[in-house]
Amino acid sequence: MPKISRKGIEMPESPIRKLVPFAEKAKNKGKNVLHLNIGQPDLKPPDCVIKKLNKLELNKLEYSHSAGIIEYRKKLARYYKEISEDITFNDILITTGGSEALNTTINCICDPGDEIIIPDPYYANYNGFINSCSATIKPLLCDIKKEFRLPSIEDFEKNITKRTRAILICNPGNPTGALYSIKELKQLSNIVKKHDLFLVTDEVYREFVYDNNVHNSILTLKNIQQNSIVIDSVSKRYSMCGARIGAIISKNKDVINTALKFSQARLSPPTIGQILSMEALNSGKKYFRDIINEYDKRRKTLVKLINKIDGIICPLPKGAFYCIAELPVKNAENFCKWLLEDFHIDNTTVMLAPANGFYSKKNEVFNQVRIAYVLEEEKLKLAAKIIEKGLELYRD
Amino acid sequence: MPKISRKGIEMPESPIRKLVPFAEKAKNKGKNVLHLNIGQPDLKPPDCVIKKLNKLELNKLEYSHSAGIIEYRKKLARYYKEISEDITFNDILITTGGSEALNTTINCICDPGDEIIIPDPYYANYNGFINSCSATIKPLLCDIKKEFRLPSIEDFEKNITKRTRAILICNPGNPTGALYSIKELKQLSNIVKKHDLFLVTDEVYREFVYDNNVHNSILTLKNIQQNSIVIDSVSKRYSMCGARIGAIISKNKDVINTALKFSQARLSPPTIGQILSMEALNSGKKYFRDIINEYDKRRKTLVKLINKIDGIICPLPKGAFYCIAELPVKNAENFCKWLLEDFHIDNTTVMLAPANGFYSKKNEVFNQVRIAYVLEEEKLKLAAKIIEKGLELYRD
Repeated sequence: MPKISRKGIEMPESPIRKLVPFAEKAKNKGKNVLHLNIGQPDLKPPDCVIKKLNKLELNKLEYSHSAGIIEYRKKLARYYKEISEDITFNDILITTGGSEALNTTINCICDPGDEIIIPDPYYANYNGFINSCSATIKPLLCDIKKEFRLPSIEDFEKNITKRTRAILICNPGNPTGALYSIKELKQLSNIVKKHDLFLVTDEVYREFVYDNNVHNSILTLKNIQQNSIVIDSVSKRYSMCGARIGAIISKNKDVINTALKFSQARLSPPTIGQILSMEALNSGKKYFRDIINEYDKRRKTLVKLINKIDGIICPLPKGAFYCIAELPVKNAENFCKWLLEDFHIDNTTVMLAPANGFYSKKNEVFNQVRIAYVLEEEKLKLAAKIIEKGLELYRD
Repeated sequence: MPKISRKGIEMPESPIRKLVPFAEKAKNKGKNVLHLNIGQPDLKPPDCVIKKLNKLELNKLEYSHSAGIIEYRKKLARYYKEISEDITFNDILITTGGSEALNTTINCICDPGDEIIIPDPYYANYNGFINSCSATIKPLLCDIKKEFRLPSIEDFEKNITKRTRAILICNPGNPTGALYSIKELKQLSNIVKKHDLFLVTDEVYREFVYDNNVHNSILTLKNIQQNSIVIDSVSKRYSMCGARIGAIISKNKDVINTALKFSQARLSPPTIGQILSMEALNSGKKYFRDIINEYDKRRKTLVKLINKIDGIICPLPKGAFYCIAELPVKNAENFCKWLLEDFHIDNTTVMLAPANGFYSKKNEVFNQVRIAYVLEEEKLKLAAKIIEKGLELYRD
């Protein structure tokens, strides 16, 4: 039998889905499972999107331009102009989700053996994208006790080698909820400038920032325009995960032109997803205000209740809709399995994502979970109670 | 400024789109351009798809399972069961177009430096997918005078090295229209069995076979079930290019499980595209009969007229909707540009794809074009006349 590639064998399984068989078994037994393990928001897309979706009035389904529908790119440029006024549609390439935006970006900047420095823990699928390019992640451990602040300049510089091609951050952060200050970003800009690296920033949660904090996009850092690549997506912003529409934004022409060559090979992003994403831009500020308020309520409720539980540490996230909690257990994965298999309150249990899957192999951390606060408040209250009572009963 | 990856620099531009700026200039001058350069069919998707598309009745837009909507996979399994009765939904993984199916497959079987043998000329985007994995194509030249028949066993075996991982064919062939006989496929099966290679077959044009010929899928070759990977797509089959839905079909569990890991990294194929592709399976045999008849008429009309032109050789394609024609010019690309820039009949000209972009660098052939017969008959007649009169006037 012919052999699978080495990178295929090394391809990590998604930590978010690792416990799915346990959840399915629980459901088959008639249990309700509250899914706090995955960032699939329960909120609806903007009304205008749903309206458009049910009145498409199309009579064909053709490829779009490989860089995306030009009208959409132009409209999207207006969105980015509010962040940095020199962005034009030529700086934007539409992709099949943020996933493809990242994959294509890594293809543009990494050959096999090249390295990307990433604060650890990080969005687990970065492993997959970087592995599929046969490149390597250099993880920089961040501390839950310091609220996952960015590592020091010295830490970054110690890890830069001849093969380093980029620093990749997620801001606001999945899985940590960390939000980087302008000071931290400027530090990063100095490093990438000095060492001639790319700064790739996954800003898909840009709109979800709480407590009067401000999101700082690297698009505002004029001194590193040629180093900066922003990854974006409509999946979380407009609760349109199934549309599979994302974007690469960069003032670096080589990056956009090279990304276009990779994009031409796959012909076109999904046409209907683009039409709906274009429509989403009509939704206005109120849509965001409402959903940010909703996430904010959920965040406060959940984190407050979780922190009341004996032995749990859970920094209040400043952005996105995830938090990481350190549990008073040795192995959080076993606890998560146990919750699904052996525990319930009134026939309901909780599915959490063991955080270890978000840490690099080098920096394994076994006693943390990632919680996505994507369910309504009442469910979150119940979830916190289930975790609390579960911990009381659970023995490692 | 940080540097683009070597593979980014080496990434080929799409030959189909190379002349697009010339076509745009022609259009800006008010010329009509008949597009025979790209396989974007002018035919409509099945009526049931259009109906569904305009009555989706969705109120959310969520990720699907990474392997695709299970209901769709089960329904699709019934389609493949007609080809080979042992195919189940577990052997099918839904992808974002045939493009992703190929890219993922190559990720599953190739590490950097590995080799894939491909009959030459071949679908140009194979270059991109294989380059993005830092693997290498070993092209085997096929002869237009022998109607692009498969190279001999000896030719294949001469090109097998320690790094060879697969043979990749397109059947029926884009860009050649060649259709491989069961005898040819059995020869291939012996080679891949003997040398422990994968046989990857791009069967996206499976339904488009003419003159009472029969398409033979490698799914029917039971002796190489563990070697076989089929690439498929709804884009051409149902004229649903913009849906971006394809599939990988293989009885090899390692392949499907590894492909699933790559697919989990990108979360989900487009949800609406899957819903519409599932609907397309309701369209029945009449839909295919009608479009095959239509393509067949076009094929006969075009190839007959083209072959009447002095100095042109154009084998009658047996499948797909492309043909390759050898022109009595030194450089077909220059002729194609000239048609767009300097020639017209009644203000109409033709855009063809220079075939050189479909040949490997090793086997460059400069005097051929690929013609996609994707327009209605009257337009094809006019196109043939434009090519004929153009050739009379054109001087290299």
